Amino acid sequence: MTGKRKNSKSRLRGRIWIEGQEGTFLGYGRVVLLERIKEHGSISAAARSMEMSYRHAWELVDSMNRQSRLPVVEKSTGGRGGGGAILTKTGEQAIQTFWSVHSEFKEFLHARGKRLKL
Amino acid sequence: MTGKRKNSKSRLRGRIWIEGQEGTFLGYGRVVLLERIKEHGSISAAARSMEMSYRHAWELVDSMNRQSRLPVVEKSTGGRGGGGAILTKTGEQAIQTFWSVHSEFKEFLHARGKRLKL
Repeated sequence: MTGKRKNSKSRLRGRIWIEGQEGTFLGYGRVVLLERIKEHGSISAAARSMEMSYRHAWELVDSMNRQSRLPVVEKSTGGRGGGGAILTKTGEQAIQTFWSVHSEFKEFLHARGKRLKL
Repeated sequence: MTGKRKNSKSRLRGRIWIEGQEGTFLGYGRVVLLERIKEHGSISAAARSMEMSYRHAWELVDSMNRQSRLPVVEKSTGGRGGGGAILTKTGEQAIQTFWSVHSEFKEFLHARGKRLKL
């Protein structure tokens, strides 16, 4: 035995999501979509930036709005031509909560991963 | 405002896996496969019990064996007709480690989930 470990690179990985009454409420893709809506001020521009169909983006937003106490995205009125969308305060909080949980999860994976003996 | 919360059922969910040099080393399906191999003493019987093809089961076992310091499954010699497989001590430890990490992960999800404000 040389003591050389074949798999010294074992790493603990994972993913998390938040479920609501209908299944997924918030996950990585949904949170990035909310961030893009905030950035672009429209669902269609946000969808385009993620190479996602408008229909799919709209369904995700609708699903989040149905499962949230208050809407995460609302139609923006006024502005050039209208038709835009804005992230609500509730939407901002959803993004913040998700990344905060994600960051604690990453710490868990890192700390527990260091103690792996495989 | 009635104070009724639409999504009082928000729940934090997730999954974990352990990566080796080639990608996934251990995950839920692989660990259950190891448990079934222990139970049935053969890869084909284990695969059948999970409605998995023998080929797929064999590939998963081979992938785990390649990425583990010592094999997790070995051919069993002797016995009726031979052709069986046994879970090694390393395989036992892999199962134990995985469920132990999973159990700590479940505690994390539960504890952090309780503090969700969404």
